[in-house]
Amino acid sequence: MGIVLGANQYGKAETRLVHVARAGEPHTLTDLNVSVALAGDLADVHLSGDNGHVLPTDTQKNTVYAFARQHGVASVEAFGLLLARHFVDSQEPIHAARVRLESYSWSRLGPHSFQRDGGEVRTATVTYDGSTATVVSGVTDLVLLNSTDSEFVGFIEDGYTTLAPTTDRILATAVTARWRHATADGDWDGSYAAVRSLLVEAFVGTYSRSLQQTLYAMGERVLTARPEVVEVRLAMPNRHHFLVDLSPFGLDNPNEVYFAADRPYGLIEGTVARDDAPAAGLAWW
Amino acid sequence: MGIVLGANQYGKAETRLVHVARAGEPHTLTDLNVSVALAGDLADVHLSGDNGHVLPTDTQKNTVYAFARQHGVASVEAFGLLLARHFVDSQEPIHAARVRLESYSWSRLGPHSFQRDGGEVRTATVTYDGSTATVVSGVTDLVLLNSTDSEFVGFIEDGYTTLAPTTDRILATAVTARWRHATADGDWDGSYAAVRSLLVEAFVGTYSRSLQQTLYAMGERVLTARPEVVEVRLAMPNRHHFLVDLSPFGLDNPNEVYFAADRPYGLIEGTVARDDAPAAGLAWW
Amino acid sequence: MGIVLGANQYGKAETRLVHVARAGEPHTLTDLNVSVALAGDLADVHLSGDNGHVLPTDTQKNTVYAFARQHGVASVEAFGLLLARHFVDSQEPIHAARVRLESYSWSRLGPHSFQRDGGEVRTATVTYDGSTATVVSGVTDLVLLNSTDSEFVGFIEDGYTTLAPTTDRILATAVTARWRHATADGDWDGSYAAVRSLLVEAFVGTYSRSLQQTLYAMGERVLTARPEVVEVRLAMPNRHHFLVDLSPFGLDNPNEVYFAADRPYGLIEGTVARDDAPAAGLAWW
Amino acid sequence: MGIVLGANQYGKAETRLVHVARAGEPHTLTDLNVSVALAGDLADVHLSGDNGHVLPTDTQKNTVYAFARQHGVASVEAFGLLLARHFVDSQEPIHAARVRLESYSWSRLGPHSFQRDGGEVRTATVTYDGSTATVVSGVTDLVLLNSTDSEFVGFIEDGYTTLAPTTDRILATAVTARWRHATADGDWDGSYAAVRSLLVEAFVGTYSRSLQQTLYAMGERVLTARPEVVEVRLAMPNRHHFLVDLSPFGLDNPNEVYFAADRPYGLIEGTVARDDAPAAGLAWW
Repeated sequence: MGIVLGANQYGKAETRLVHVARAGEPHTLTDLNVSVALAGDLADVHLSGDNGHVLPTDTQKNTVYAFARQHGVASVEAFGLLLARHFVDSQEPIHAARVRLESYSWSRLGPHSFQRDGGEVRTATVTYDGSTATVVSGVTDLVLLNSTDSEFVGFIEDGYTTLAPTTDRILATAVTARWRHATADGDWDGSYAAVRSLLVEAFVGTYSRSLQQTLYAMGERVLTARPEVVEVRLAMPNRHHFLVDLSPFGLDNPNEVYFAADRPYGLIEGTVARDDAPAAGLAWW
Repeated sequence: MGIVLGANQYGKAETRLVHVARAGEPHTLTDLNVSVALAGDLADVHLSGDNGHVLPTDTQKNTVYAFARQHGVASVEAFGLLLARHFVDSQEPIHAARVRLESYSWSRLGPHSFQRDGGEVRTATVTYDGSTATVVSGVTDLVLLNSTDSEFVGFIEDGYTTLAPTTDRILATAVTARWRHATADGDWDGSYAAVRSLLVEAFVGTYSRSLQQTLYAMGERVLTARPEVVEVRLAMPNRHHFLVDLSPFGLDNPNEVYFAADRPYGLIEGTVARDDAPAAGLAWW
Repeated sequence: MGIVLGANQYGKAETRLVHVARAGEPHTLTDLNVSVALAGDLADVHLSGDNGHVLPTDTQKNTVYAFARQHGVASVEAFGLLLARHFVDSQEPIHAARVRLESYSWSRLGPHSFQRDGGEVRTATVTYDGSTATVVSGVTDLVLLNSTDSEFVGFIEDGYTTLAPTTDRILATAVTARWRHATADGDWDGSYAAVRSLLVEAFVGTYSRSLQQTLYAMGERVLTARPEVVEVRLAMPNRHHFLVDLSPFGLDNPNEVYFAADRPYGLIEGTVARDDAPAAGLAWW
Repeated sequence: MGIVLGANQYGKAETRLVHVARAGEPHTLTDLNVSVALAGDLADVHLSGDNGHVLPTDTQKNTVYAFARQHGVASVEAFGLLLARHFVDSQEPIHAARVRLESYSWSRLGPHSFQRDGGEVRTATVTYDGSTATVVSGVTDLVLLNSTDSEFVGFIEDGYTTLAPTTDRILATAVTARWRHATADGDWDGSYAAVRSLLVEAFVGTYSRSLQQTLYAMGERVLTARPEVVEVRLAMPNRHHFLVDLSPFGLDNPNEVYFAADRPYGLIEGTVARDDAPAAGLAWW
């Protein structure tokens, strides 16, 4: 029996970069959170503390800032590709890189004035192994609610069942969606806007018999309309809204007054994919 | 020497109420967080544990839900007034009530579909002492940024100074503003929309020599335009954006690449008021 | 009618200072979060943006770090006093200072090794107006629970009451306590340890007919035993633990299985003081 | 080309269970957060909204509470095993279950009084596929710091390097460790206590040339001493403590005054395993 080093990675997480493009008015603002992870020939640093193959996380952070100046930030996906390729191609011991990016959106208030939108965050994860780059785009904290057109009936009942079937409930969730692109080339901003709209339209337009059905409809809608996407992964918590029993006060409650609960919550996770999707490689690292 | 009971209050905090108005299409959605505090003749419960003067916080929660059904939620201010008056007027031992409300806004996606906006939250604090009601409206987490037209020069320098003066910096803040109304009657939604716009316009339109100057301009703008408001209190953290030194990499940085810092942060707080404002009473409780 | 500047203050919030005392083994570790607020002759900066009376928040941060080196950190109270006095005494336009400190405790694992404790945080607020300094010590996030010896009966019942009286419930809370000292001199660490113990002992030892009764008992216990303390302010959320109804599954539940709820929660706040306490001055700023 | 359902799961997340064992004095307290995920023959619910194979997440929650009454909570691992086996063995369409548990520790203050410890959280993940159960124990938020005996030298330097090598720095991290057991039988509490101690001892006792080296030493220490453990996975953020430059104030800083930074942070993740470890199966689901 021996003890061995298994999978490992390291990098700088949550580098907060704000980039102002000032070439003429109006300014444009990019607000990112960038996390880098690198893997490769890193046995020595684990076994003996020899840092000869370690590109410091501090240097990774510097590179994020320098690249923003040198190349600008065309999109999270494009910026991630630049960084991932740089780390692997410039450092022999580094064999693979993953760059995760969050983009916080701001609304324009004036030529150099902005309001941060809050709510949903655009995401991207880019990986590169020295030959192949993969791109996964995404969105998180997209909070959606249908106040009707949702039911939940016909489920399993066992000795621990107390839930009553309902034919009219609130369906609310905070969507985290990630979608894998067929290739590492694309009109990233255009694709993002289209996919995001499709996800929302499918949530709004689906009469829901279960949150799983809604989830699948959202993924299917994207894949049907967007040939550049080959796989969609969704995580959708069921943000329960419980109808308050007002009968002790002599009041009815015709689906009008709800308690919005924090915990516990249902969590529905699923994948919708093309049956001929290319191999994922490092995409979901 | 004796030991005595001083100021005290109790209540139910953070009752999460979602109200769906379903009379015909489209539905409208109200999403609130309601916190009640009551004061009055409460010495006995502290000194001996006699609960005879205690309206349980559980009952307060029930009242929030029942009132939403009985009266609807016309606005956070109006709903708060109903609740505050109810608790004092219906319970002899309760002499004063404070109701704090947060309202989370949702954008319409369809006749019964919504997306939560995230970001800024509308607030209200209503107090009532058995005869006088006060209303303070507000907004919090309103994150604003000017990418230029901000300087900071001419400050005190002492033996602990390292900051260099700058004539062009990013000015970013998360505004918390609360404004006191002259009376407990009003077009609450109309007033809120107007005040919020004035705050934003003043932030955007002020060439800033300091965040304090911007703060005062925001309060002054509201008071000048809105006769129903008599006092504005603002808390504005300075969300520092530090220009990254790229010179070690042979790069300049003409106000383009910034590090958005978390902590520490400057915190600027101030009050702007009419010199003939009526007495505040319980307004800032 | 005119528009005027009212109460205002500014300062650097949340300066994170870690100090290692290395004089010989073992090392000792101090881990603080320091927030400064200053007030004074600050009309000009608000009205015209003239920063001539503004000691930058960046300088305040530098001062925190420099003072840690120059004076060490004997206790949060002593360190706050040094800082508060410095800002007012060294800058003519600054007339008052408030320094708030949080101290995160670490347990020793070895001569230079430590584990952060998590949970409760020691706090202090020091103010100084050029002549008088006040000291308020405190603790926050002290989470306590009694699994019996708590009842809640005899409360007001009205048309919105559904809560049943109970003679045996879990009583749980996260104590935030702040206590004002008679003077600005003291054995700060000794006093803190003693007061904290008294608070816990009173919570543990009181058969509770209401959380208010427990709160008062805690304050009274401190004032009775510690002559250096003149006023205690407590905020104690009622962290509800609801007995789960297991009867649908053919099971009883003899106060054994509980759901720990997040929101809403009761919030009990109160003050216990000596009737001959000196004037508070700026203590509760 | 077709569109297909891929990997999916659903369940109730974050059921908060507090269990009081009251058989005689003293009481003992168990405070858990339980998250269930189920997978199986769930195509229909995704494709058509047919819930016939869906055990509602509400029922899962009920089961957690009922099992606590029926079986007690001997340990997080044992309780997770009971639940995971129940869901799969009792429901034909459910083919696999994962139960994640967090346990919050409380210190005893009296026979029925407790203080929540804060800080580190004990965790467990149990999976079951109808025939094999796997158990992964863990700890998270274990914050450790060495104030010396840490260096970082000899790393790669490139055009984006500014970091200076250092032979004496603070090494601080918040350990998340998970370790896989060889079998689903064990003295869970005894094993947990032993592994946790070994992790801490290795952190404390290792002169660190890199955080990776410390990480590997921690995993190796566990595997060497504990035959029941076959694989250890560690995630250790580098909580940077930056030495403050006090030279502008005429002060030196002999590794005494530090700024504790929030973001960005290094993140080191790695696996240490036996070379003859049995196949992991669902262990890391």
